[in-house]
Amino acid sequence: MALPTWIAVDWGTTHLRAYAIGPEGVLADAASEDGMGQLARDGYEPALLRLISPWLAPGRVTEVVACGMVGSRQGWFEAPYRTVPCTPLDSASLVTVPTRDARLKLRLVPGLRQDSPADVMRGEETQIAGALAVLPGFDGVFCLPGTHSKWVQVSAGEVVSFQTAMTGELFSLLSSQSVLRHGMQGDGWDEQSFRNALSDAISRPERLAARLFALRAEGLIAGLSAASARARLSGLLIGIELAAARPYWLGQSVALIGAEGLCATYARALAAQGIAARQLPAAACTIAGLSRARTPKVSA
Amino acid sequence: MALPTWIAVDWGTTHLRAYAIGPEGVLADAASEDGMGQLARDGYEPALLRLISPWLAPGRVTEVVACGMVGSRQGWFEAPYRTVPCTPLDSASLVTVPTRDARLKLRLVPGLRQDSPADVMRGEETQIAGALAVLPGFDGVFCLPGTHSKWVQVSAGEVVSFQTAMTGELFSLLSSQSVLRHGMQGDGWDEQSFRNALSDAISRPERLAARLFALRAEGLIAGLSAASARARLSGLLIGIELAAARPYWLGQSVALIGAEGLCATYARALAAQGIAARQLPAAACTIAGLSRARTPKVSA
Repeated sequence: MALPTWIAVDWGTTHLRAYAIGPEGVLADAASEDGMGQLARDGYEPALLRLISPWLAPGRVTEVVACGMVGSRQGWFEAPYRTVPCTPLDSASLVTVPTRDARLKLRLVPGLRQDSPADVMRGEETQIAGALAVLPGFDGVFCLPGTHSKWVQVSAGEVVSFQTAMTGELFSLLSSQSVLRHGMQGDGWDEQSFRNALSDAISRPERLAARLFALRAEGLIAGLSAASARARLSGLLIGIELAAARPYWLGQSVALIGAEGLCATYARALAAQGIAARQLPAAACTIAGLSRARTPKVSA
Repeated sequence: MALPTWIAVDWGTTHLRAYAIGPEGVLADAASEDGMGQLARDGYEPALLRLISPWLAPGRVTEVVACGMVGSRQGWFEAPYRTVPCTPLDSASLVTVPTRDARLKLRLVPGLRQDSPADVMRGEETQIAGALAVLPGFDGVFCLPGTHSKWVQVSAGEVVSFQTAMTGELFSLLSSQSVLRHGMQGDGWDEQSFRNALSDAISRPERLAARLFALRAEGLIAGLSAASARARLSGLLIGIELAAARPYWLGQSVALIGAEGLCATYARALAAQGIAARQLPAAACTIAGLSRARTPKVSA
């Protein structure tokens, strides 16, 4: 394999992904579970080298650009937030991280903050910049579903405002650690149950507190299947996310960025509200965004 | 200590509590962490004997009456649910459990089920019967806050309907296992933050999904204190519980049954909605209910 021109890194709470980039695009990729949650401060450089050392050469300095929680206060090195409204990225704001290995020239992309209502993102700003490279002039809303789903209003190339929902984290906690786990073994899916729960939660979000335990009770006394229980929990949680995000999507142009299956689920949920959302793949957006980040604005 | 006439047992998911009862009332009590969650089927009898054997005598059979998850399908022995509307207890429905130790005569109180909307309770029916012994002729709503809070409409001595909210379990998961835990160390409490979050969640429950992550974001960028974050999380979750339970409490006579501090929190929350709720101590209600359960109805 030819040596890469630079290396793109997506470094979140639970994962580390690296892409070797050459003049024609991605030459190779690699991933590990060495997310921020697993690492002490002095564990970051060894974790990165375990992944990318095959792409380095003696006496040659390779540029690495990383986004995500790696730049948080609990991460490797803090890259202070930029404050919205602002462009998703600014090449001049990248933060250089001192490394022991002289072959690395590492810079981190700062996240974004919003002062009121208080909110923060790290990593999504890069995906948004990448999406804007694919959809130049896009004016509307990006939805990035996941552990902490983001709804992001973009206009004239700037992030105007955004809102986070803990939907993925709530689903994970409730389906694997709460009393509801007893009725949710396996990974089946009942689409009609999803749609009904979604519709119920969007139209009557105030009933959520009464809807959750019903999944357990119906499992005990009415034979609710695991496939139906999982789909209903997903529908309820995405439903209250959509209810809270209504000012973001109502009457707007919406594009989804994320994992394919999850984006498809959100697309169906939005379609039920009359919104036809585009879908963009997360990894491609991340790489395109990191590529923009390393390029000074004038040449973008 | 004189030997007890009978032994009252409250056996839930996380705890086991026993009370030695004599002609004048409670002679002694004992508790352990041997809840249903800790025990395999053959572990129940040894766990009970560890706690109550000082109260037993050779050649003497002692009556034991127990309520709670011990009677669930995953418990020691299944006591099938009774279906509402019905009285909270029926002495004739107690289920006798075979024991190896001949000194025990053990019976379990069945829980209650509601077919539509599906819901179940185990243990609370006993506390409700005990509360009705203290408040004869009570017509209104019992609220039993906790891991799984119950709202129970009672009329003419019968449980008419009920509704469960997973408020305590959600608080526990979010404050100790989600990303919000980083800003919630310690056990401080900011009452004004609680009241504001409560009021916000009751009046705009559809905003919940956007309110949770704000606790993390304000901790990161606005210096939100742990005391304020904990109180706000509690206010948000109790607020959406109250929003979902509005048909239960609005314009009703409400009595709270539960741990003193938690009941006081709910009483303040209800007071902010114009409801003056009575407070009844959980243990006394449990013992009074178990006492009723062992007495055939005609002598009640």
